[in-house]
Amino acid sequence: MDIGKLKQRNRKSKEIILKALIYHGAGERAWEEKSKPVVKDATDAIVKVTKTTICGTDLHIMKGDVPEVPDGLTLGHEGVGVIAEAGSAVSGFKAGDRVLISCITSCGKCDACRKGMYSHCEKGGWILGHLIDGTQAEYVRIPHADTSLYHIPDGADEEALVMLSDILPTAFECGVLNGQVKPGDRVAIVGAGPIGLATLLTAQFYSPAEIIMIDTDANRLEAAKTLGATKLVNGNAVDEIMKLTDGKGVDVAVEAVGTPATFDICQSIVAPGGHIANVGVHGKSVNLHLEKLWASNITITTRLVDTVTTPMLLKTVQSGKLKPQKLITHRFALNQIMKAYDTFENAAKERALKVILSN
Amino acid sequence: MDIGKLKQRNRKSKEIILKALIYHGAGERAWEEKSKPVVKDATDAIVKVTKTTICGTDLHIMKGDVPEVPDGLTLGHEGVGVIAEAGSAVSGFKAGDRVLISCITSCGKCDACRKGMYSHCEKGGWILGHLIDGTQAEYVRIPHADTSLYHIPDGADEEALVMLSDILPTAFECGVLNGQVKPGDRVAIVGAGPIGLATLLTAQFYSPAEIIMIDTDANRLEAAKTLGATKLVNGNAVDEIMKLTDGKGVDVAVEAVGTPATFDICQSIVAPGGHIANVGVHGKSVNLHLEKLWASNITITTRLVDTVTTPMLLKTVQSGKLKPQKLITHRFALNQIMKAYDTFENAAKERALKVILSN
Amino acid sequence: MDIGKLKQRNRKSKEIILKALIYHGAGERAWEEKSKPVVKDATDAIVKVTKTTICGTDLHIMKGDVPEVPDGLTLGHEGVGVIAEAGSAVSGFKAGDRVLISCITSCGKCDACRKGMYSHCEKGGWILGHLIDGTQAEYVRIPHADTSLYHIPDGADEEALVMLSDILPTAFECGVLNGQVKPGDRVAIVGAGPIGLATLLTAQFYSPAEIIMIDTDANRLEAAKTLGATKLVNGNAVDEIMKLTDGKGVDVAVEAVGTPATFDICQSIVAPGGHIANVGVHGKSVNLHLEKLWASNITITTRLVDTVTTPMLLKTVQSGKLKPQKLITHRFALNQIMKAYDTFENAAKERALKVILSN
Amino acid sequence: MDIGKLKQRNRKSKEIILKALIYHGAGERAWEEKSKPVVKDATDAIVKVTKTTICGTDLHIMKGDVPEVPDGLTLGHEGVGVIAEAGSAVSGFKAGDRVLISCITSCGKCDACRKGMYSHCEKGGWILGHLIDGTQAEYVRIPHADTSLYHIPDGADEEALVMLSDILPTAFECGVLNGQVKPGDRVAIVGAGPIGLATLLTAQFYSPAEIIMIDTDANRLEAAKTLGATKLVNGNAVDEIMKLTDGKGVDVAVEAVGTPATFDICQSIVAPGGHIANVGVHGKSVNLHLEKLWASNITITTRLVDTVTTPMLLKTVQSGKLKPQKLITHRFALNQIMKAYDTFENAAKERALKVILSN
Repeated sequence: MDIGKLKQRNRKSKEIILKALIYHGAGERAWEEKSKPVVKDATDAIVKVTKTTICGTDLHIMKGDVPEVPDGLTLGHEGVGVIAEAGSAVSGFKAGDRVLISCITSCGKCDACRKGMYSHCEKGGWILGHLIDGTQAEYVRIPHADTSLYHIPDGADEEALVMLSDILPTAFECGVLNGQVKPGDRVAIVGAGPIGLATLLTAQFYSPAEIIMIDTDANRLEAAKTLGATKLVNGNAVDEIMKLTDGKGVDVAVEAVGTPATFDICQSIVAPGGHIANVGVHGKSVNLHLEKLWASNITITTRLVDTVTTPMLLKTVQSGKLKPQKLITHRFALNQIMKAYDTFENAAKERALKVILSN
Repeated sequence: MDIGKLKQRNRKSKEIILKALIYHGAGERAWEEKSKPVVKDATDAIVKVTKTTICGTDLHIMKGDVPEVPDGLTLGHEGVGVIAEAGSAVSGFKAGDRVLISCITSCGKCDACRKGMYSHCEKGGWILGHLIDGTQAEYVRIPHADTSLYHIPDGADEEALVMLSDILPTAFECGVLNGQVKPGDRVAIVGAGPIGLATLLTAQFYSPAEIIMIDTDANRLEAAKTLGATKLVNGNAVDEIMKLTDGKGVDVAVEAVGTPATFDICQSIVAPGGHIANVGVHGKSVNLHLEKLWASNITITTRLVDTVTTPMLLKTVQSGKLKPQKLITHRFALNQIMKAYDTFENAAKERALKVILSN
Repeated sequence: MDIGKLKQRNRKSKEIILKALIYHGAGERAWEEKSKPVVKDATDAIVKVTKTTICGTDLHIMKGDVPEVPDGLTLGHEGVGVIAEAGSAVSGFKAGDRVLISCITSCGKCDACRKGMYSHCEKGGWILGHLIDGTQAEYVRIPHADTSLYHIPDGADEEALVMLSDILPTAFECGVLNGQVKPGDRVAIVGAGPIGLATLLTAQFYSPAEIIMIDTDANRLEAAKTLGATKLVNGNAVDEIMKLTDGKGVDVAVEAVGTPATFDICQSIVAPGGHIANVGVHGKSVNLHLEKLWASNITITTRLVDTVTTPMLLKTVQSGKLKPQKLITHRFALNQIMKAYDTFENAAKERALKVILSN
Repeated sequence: MDIGKLKQRNRKSKEIILKALIYHGAGERAWEEKSKPVVKDATDAIVKVTKTTICGTDLHIMKGDVPEVPDGLTLGHEGVGVIAEAGSAVSGFKAGDRVLISCITSCGKCDACRKGMYSHCEKGGWILGHLIDGTQAEYVRIPHADTSLYHIPDGADEEALVMLSDILPTAFECGVLNGQVKPGDRVAIVGAGPIGLATLLTAQFYSPAEIIMIDTDANRLEAAKTLGATKLVNGNAVDEIMKLTDGKGVDVAVEAVGTPATFDICQSIVAPGGHIANVGVHGKSVNLHLEKLWASNITITTRLVDTVTTPMLLKTVQSGKLKPQKLITHRFALNQIMKAYDTFENAAKERALKVILSN
């Protein structure tokens, strides 16, 4: 009797199949069968995904812009769900607990984590749907569960919380906190896509006097208006903003697109003493006009979200100060995710901001 | 009787002549006679200059890089002296007071001044030896004297204090404070000229674990060694620094030269979560590698010195914690200033850092 | 001919008489004639008062609690008006300019002013209606006008702006900024008088999750409700607050009364890592329970308002983020000020918060 | 054969006996045999103690001032050692690793830990030698080892590192960081015992202009002099300090004793805008003079050390910026600990600061 083979057979026989949105190289995705994930390390948890969403970053991956994503990977780094199984070293969560999944995995132990810079965790960071299977599936394995998941308070709106996996902490940490938005400030947000609008929502935590949204899509600007923008600029951005600010420029310019042209707007409109907070994902270098800016007392920041503010954001959602569900425009069943991708890929035409997939 | 002519004659007869280092367009300077300055506004003070120095910026002016400087202007924005006359609205200084002249003129009233950003004072900023006659003369008119001069404590070393007009606050504010140097940090300073060395001196206020100086001039690196540098890098900077830091890079990179190449070193060696503090005066734009840095959680700052830390620096000099006189390599009489310029223009050959001109 | 007498007669003949609310020792006040103030120093401005108010501090003075106030002084340190005359050294204001008067006089030149701590200005601080004649009069002399007055923007609500002379910056600086209120925080404000309510208004700049108001006056708590309080506590404060916070206490406790009992509530409800921000004016020492708090990681702050945030507050009023006029409950003509004092002295019965006196 | 019984017998027979300094109620201690600790939770590590020390807090315990310490507990919360065994969930350490033991146990997962306030860890905090067996023994069990131990760099001075378990981070975090010591500041430290002297050492990280040490023990003041104090005050503290500071007081007053009288000195000498940083352990409440201080713009902080700066302190020791071994006056073998206690209990007479016990 070959015990090794027997064990293998047993394991295989126990293997459960689920459905997942799988990447097959640039432009190729499929809703396919895959083995249900199992606890590999004692600090893992297996989460049954109840709601997930699609991120602009997923579209970048689909375009082939993120070459380290391997063929066969399940995409997705956002979602809420229920703990199906917790590894033996997981102390804060047990089967049945409802959880918010952070897009950033944090071991809680390395130098970066101890400094609150979870994005640069030596064993984590952004790995879900990037280097390991992600959340656009019926189940997902979450490493370092104790420090990468959050309990969902009773009575919470789970759709709202899906927005807290990535887009809200990204906008808040990279845009608002790094931009140091203060009461009375003039803030300009370049880009009124989901991430720009999330910046708009969270900038209001600090009561700036003005929030100017810049975009070339009239629908998105209209959405910005309803979400709290005080001024809208569509085209001819630098001139318009200098006019709106009596030639003084803005205290905080948030780059929420990720192109040289939009970064350039930011460096043209920032006032002396001001901040440029980069949120956009850039594929090219930009031309920084130090010959003008060296004497301007400005601060430029970059950041991959650390999700260190997730507990704070949870409190603001629970208290009703933040209503991220306003960003949701479309809803699908999880098994309709191929169609959801189609919609999200045509966001302008479909007037889509964030889509929710429910399981 | 022509009263107009009489008045003119009277005025002329009262006009006193002094000597000053005068700019006559790119490459042209002269030690010439000029009318002694008089109080124009009630907030002015006339200071008899007892010691002054030459700044790297003066050399930029001489090269024609600062086109707004008019022909005929007296150069210089640093120095100490004695109040010769104080305007009627000057309340903090009187004739005979020994004073430190700030390179930045501050009205103390405008929005920028009230925020401590004197560099952007609506009526001041850097104007001495730039837009109005400067300190490389026997006398200088200081506008907004109450908020642009500092009393010299009894027993102070006046040569040391000349370094507090510009170079020390510039290094400290733009490099050390903006770079947020902390105890235990790894700091790299690109450029071991006077401003880089002043950054080296003031970075030690915060007890970083390492201060790596980068330059291609062996003499300057040698000077850096005696002033507290823990490591020296001469050539092949990026590779060397990554080797010295186990591939991690530095917490703070200070750009103290002002060229695309030196800025590029900074962006290549800064660790995630780190700071690039620009001190150098740039004549060209630089290529900012956002395609790499967007996710690196870094902060880039620019600043024209505000001289808001001058009182703090005065205390550290008085307490012996800071010895800026160590930067002085050459001394001349004020009327030898033409020769002093020659020396300073050949700084590498002459092994010159800062020169002192005494009157 | 007696020249001395002639001069005196001339002076007297030019002397203009106005009416002012004058302090005559504890419990004694009168609306009396007094010489109109004149420019004494070149930095003075004479302001025709158009609106003023009565502060809780004025009541303290009337009770004799502020013994340094001399008999014969005009009270009042708040108001808006129009420049009647500006001294020769005043550069930012001219006759006819509409101005907001800061309760704190700042020379803009001393060490304290240069650090933004105007409350401890060597030549100013709180002197109006305290050491020199104040604003409860037809005209007032404002020393150091350039740095103690603010231009009123066109179209501004002047009643709202009267609240920016003292009560709003006091609440914001001493309570909200010193308390470091953050999004998602639990804040408790002990005392729902005008200053506590102003703290409530400005705390909302930072989007705390909860603001609990504590008072024993049901009317004031009712007002707090309409101004944004999320919870009200009337009696049995410590127990109630610990219950409302699941035994955890609050992140920020603001003391807005000035008694040992109310300070004691604060130290009993502050959570580990939290802040106690003292706003109240205290006449007695308090018992600080270091035997409990030494290990609690708390921060206690005291502050006399610096009015350094007045420009920021002006922007928030102009942008509609702050509506301080909501604190106004009563309006009188300036010459009815004796009656206004009566009303304000019976604030509980009269349901008075802030009163406006118009001239 | 009963396997269960056999296992039990084996386990018991495997029980190893060690020696430990055991508390037997106020005034009673003994160097006694005890079972060697074993891994209870998968996150535990067993550390063979190579060096430990005695803390002032241990003396408090011996006096009966810390009633929650149970009879039979091994004392001690400081030390260095070698990992003897690591639980299965410990990922950062393995048997044979040399480690620094933090006096604060941190789970790394709870809200407090995620905010860097390890002192208030829900499962840890100060428990070693307080609620669970401590480090004054041949072996110690360290819960949450991954986040409560630090690797010792090669070549490090282990005696110096024992000072990093508690006294240095306590002095630095509670005194220097909370006191916000800045370059040029005037600092006063009340109490020149080990913790006051550790504050003196770490205050120098920030280059204050003056550090005034206050004590009534001439030997300790003498030690302070060699460790960097610029001025010494022995008796009549308030008057002396006001004289030394031209009546202005100090920017930072550190309370490093823990009595009402020493706290009182601090509140009498702090300048407007200054800080009182409490480090001392208090057994009684103090009288806080809010009737004087309410308008003084001061900040008072309390804190139990979080040991969040231990990595930074390790770097400063490694770089030679910090030499905590200077605090060590006496050395003993671990089995002489009863005598070491005798010495430390008579610190003044024995001129003892810190004692090292080696195993």
